Amino acid sequence: MKVELRNLKAQDQMPLERMLASILSFDPEDRALAMELINIALDQTDQKDYSFILAIDEDDQPVGYTCYGPTPLTDGTFDLYWIAVDPRCAGQGIGALLLKAVEEDIQSRGGRMLLIETSSSLAYEQTCRFYLKKGYELVETIRDFYRQGEDRLTFIKYFSPDGYLKRKGSPL
Amino acid sequence: MKVELRNLKAQDQMPLERMLASILSFDPEDRALAMELINIALDQTDQKDYSFILAIDEDDQPVGYTCYGPTPLTDGTFDLYWIAVDPRCAGQGIGALLLKAVEEDIQSRGGRMLLIETSSSLAYEQTCRFYLKKGYELVETIRDFYRQGEDRLTFIKYFSPDGYLKRKGSPL
Repeated sequence: MKVELRNLKAQDQMPLERMLASILSFDPEDRALAMELINIALDQTDQKDYSFILAIDEDDQPVGYTCYGPTPLTDGTFDLYWIAVDPRCAGQGIGALLLKAVEEDIQSRGGRMLLIETSSSLAYEQTCRFYLKKGYELVETIRDFYRQGEDRLTFIKYFSPDGYLKRKGSPL
Repeated sequence: MKVELRNLKAQDQMPLERMLASILSFDPEDRALAMELINIALDQTDQKDYSFILAIDEDDQPVGYTCYGPTPLTDGTFDLYWIAVDPRCAGQGIGALLLKAVEEDIQSRGGRMLLIETSSSLAYEQTCRFYLKKGYELVETIRDFYRQGEDRLTFIKYFSPDGYLKRKGSPL
């Protein structure tokens, strides 16, 4: 399957809602929050809190997307809020393509690190392995964060401080 | 000084803004975010994301306040977003009074834990000592989170799971 990347458009709202509904590891609350962020991005075109990158198929239909943005009160830290791939297109490297695009974008914006919070539940085991494989480090576990028995895991990738300084115009 | 606690009212907006401006450890971005949360609570009276408790003096003027709420996507985890005390009233136990009121309120709402994120900068050293003294545990440090050289520290207090089960109506 040939996959391309592009920005979020109004026409994607319904297809993304259907895609989110087909992802079994997301519960209704997850889906509602994911749609809330999509709607914010579509309604408030000048907002800078949430950036989206979509993966689309040959028919311009979304097969995955990611939502990320600058972490409030930080200088150069970014959060990956969502990365979702249509289950029918799993195992084709779409998640990796999206994550790479996020990393490139935030580095071009002076990002020093990307932070990903996820759950310790079995449903996310594969997701955690994916982040580790992509060079993310598990820096923290908060026991029972989501509910009794379900921890919050924080993964981080630090980008080159050398590259960061260069982009900031330092002579180093 | 005799201090009492009460809910947030519209009349507190200006005094709180002045109080925040007098706290040197808050930078303009911190203050703007603190005021944003105050305005959300005053404008959207049915919102449940941000709860406020104010400490007031004999003239009903705020000398401190705290903002906290349920952590999104969790069952029973709460975040302490702000705790601020008028610098002219420091050292009188107002922070401790506010924190105790928060802990009591969230436990009555089935809260299992209270999570506090703060900065490793020198300006917050006393704050960190305060949390440790109040039984909070430093569970995580994210290096360079706020900016190069300024880490994010996460403090947590877990409340009795026994008490939690009782409140949920368990026979245990």
